[in-house]
Amino acid sequence: MMQPPTFDWLKAPLAQLNAEMHRLAQQRQEQLTKPPGSLGRLEEIATRLSALQNTQRPSADRAHIVIFAADHGVAVEGVSAFPQSVTAEMIRNFARGGGAINVLARTLGASLEIINLGTVHEIQALENVRDRRLGPGTANFVHEPAMTWEQLGQALTAGSEAIECAQSASRQPFIGGEMGIGNTTSATALACLLLHEDPVLLTGRGTGLDAAGVMHKMAIIKRALALHRPQINSPLDALRRVGGFEITALTGAYIRGAQLGLPVLIDGFISSAAALAAEHIAPGCKEWFIFSHRSAESGHAAILKALDADPLIDLNMRLGEGSGAAVALNLLRMACALHNEMATFSEAHVSRND
Amino acid sequence: MMQPPTFDWLKAPLAQLNAEMHRLAQQRQEQLTKPPGSLGRLEEIATRLSALQNTQRPSADRAHIVIFAADHGVAVEGVSAFPQSVTAEMIRNFARGGGAINVLARTLGASLEIINLGTVHEIQALENVRDRRLGPGTANFVHEPAMTWEQLGQALTAGSEAIECAQSASRQPFIGGEMGIGNTTSATALACLLLHEDPVLLTGRGTGLDAAGVMHKMAIIKRALALHRPQINSPLDALRRVGGFEITALTGAYIRGAQLGLPVLIDGFISSAAALAAEHIAPGCKEWFIFSHRSAESGHAAILKALDADPLIDLNMRLGEGSGAAVALNLLRMACALHNEMATFSEAHVSRND
Repeated sequence: MMQPPTFDWLKAPLAQLNAEMHRLAQQRQEQLTKPPGSLGRLEEIATRLSALQNTQRPSADRAHIVIFAADHGVAVEGVSAFPQSVTAEMIRNFARGGGAINVLARTLGASLEIINLGTVHEIQALENVRDRRLGPGTANFVHEPAMTWEQLGQALTAGSEAIECAQSASRQPFIGGEMGIGNTTSATALACLLLHEDPVLLTGRGTGLDAAGVMHKMAIIKRALALHRPQINSPLDALRRVGGFEITALTGAYIRGAQLGLPVLIDGFISSAAALAAEHIAPGCKEWFIFSHRSAESGHAAILKALDADPLIDLNMRLGEGSGAAVALNLLRMACALHNEMATFSEAHVSRND
Repeated sequence: MMQPPTFDWLKAPLAQLNAEMHRLAQQRQEQLTKPPGSLGRLEEIATRLSALQNTQRPSADRAHIVIFAADHGVAVEGVSAFPQSVTAEMIRNFARGGGAINVLARTLGASLEIINLGTVHEIQALENVRDRRLGPGTANFVHEPAMTWEQLGQALTAGSEAIECAQSASRQPFIGGEMGIGNTTSATALACLLLHEDPVLLTGRGTGLDAAGVMHKMAIIKRALALHRPQINSPLDALRRVGGFEITALTGAYIRGAQLGLPVLIDGFISSAAALAAEHIAPGCKEWFIFSHRSAESGHAAILKALDADPLIDLNMRLGEGSGAAVALNLLRMACALHNEMATFSEAHVSRND
């Protein structure tokens, strides 16, 4: 058997947080005209962003959002409440500005890029969609690995290049999102492999399965795990065998972001599975992740726990597309504005507590 | 003994929600290009605002924020981590734009009004502060009722007038906030009276008391309850005896808002105590309340439970000034944008689930 490729760029050193900047930001928070700690997690966000952006004036004004879309071979097993045609249809919807993430990006004034990594139903070239097709979706991982090593490498690189384009001197937050019918099945299988968990504990309703649908999805994942588990010898191989193009691209983007020193807002279940894979492949990269929201998808809690993550919001969302991260971006903006613009006790001549 | 005044305006009928508008909004949500229910509480916010604003295009673009500031006689008992001079100092800080709520209002593009209801330390007239002084703070409720019936009526009216000024044809959300050293002590005593609870269960750290400080605060509230509890014969009297000018103004604003049919964003602990008083005085008015955030102040949970409220965010905040509500306003804006601007399945030619 051929030696799998090593993808050397994945092993590049990660950027280091500026601990001194964090300390200075905490010091400033203590001087603002409010009881110490009374802004709660908004203080934590602002001081952490100070360290991540290496500045005393953290900012999230010019965030960049990238949606990776792709189809999944496993969708033929009937694991989704929606037909597979929806992946391509939603790419067209994104291109015309009608999706949830389009509305959120407009409302936020954030830039948005759509990247097509390959769908079963061919779609015409679209002006607003970057074409990075790696095939007509992944292979059905119940029977074979979802990706070849070559496809895995290309998907990782697509993610890496997307976040490189987003990089700016000001280190604005990056949001990666995804669209792909069947991708909760893929993300669940991936999390089961990386966490050594049983699909009974991690499988959820995805886009809206009923109880019988969830049982069927569990059984499909069980079959896939029985095939792949004995053969997996690395997190990259787990990603290749049960991941998707879009999940792999997110993983590549997250790892590259940590190398470049970019704060990354992690969305919900699928994105967190990619973040988990990223942390397994490049340990320590989660230092650059800000977990945005707790998804209603039932397996999310286990992934968050494994990553020691406590998301900012919990609104019972389960849409994907980076939508939870986009909603949470406002909290970063508020936290930065408060940190940068509030008066200090001495500036305002306000008495302090003892 | 003289009969207490009745404040007849408090008994005016409450506005009715438009249930048909709510149903139509829910219908629209089912047609948007996303799995049904996948936007979670953002769907709930949008459909509820549709009903509250009586429109199919809910909006929170032009919210109005009013901060009521006042001093508390009970502060002389040493129940706060900050000196009482801070109330007046913070009014000046608000007037100059340096407080947390100033920053949030600017970031949101929301209008902000500061109303001074009376402080111990006199302050000069300030251009941006409306003068509605009812006295140099309330009386110390350990020894006597905090307010006369006349002051109670004036404070209720100050709140009512503030929300009347905010009223617009488009029924934009109203945010009331407060500032007043000692006001968690007042709000806790009020909640204990209205919920028939013991202060041991509801007393928290306020602006940052240590354990001994919390014990002392509990003892002070216990003494006040022992004095007032046997004499109280109405929620209004409870408010008069242990409330504050600013808490009473919030109560008046909330009741008048429900009469006018305005959606009201409730902030944290103090505001929720006022909302509790409003619901006791004018039952049903909480239909017009949207609870914004879960405060870190320990008594908040009990008040929320009594009002059957589940706030949108939980960021460990405990600042007051309407800051939690201001942070949550973004969620309303996002929810409205998604509701109004997303494409439907038929508009976007996206296939539906079965």
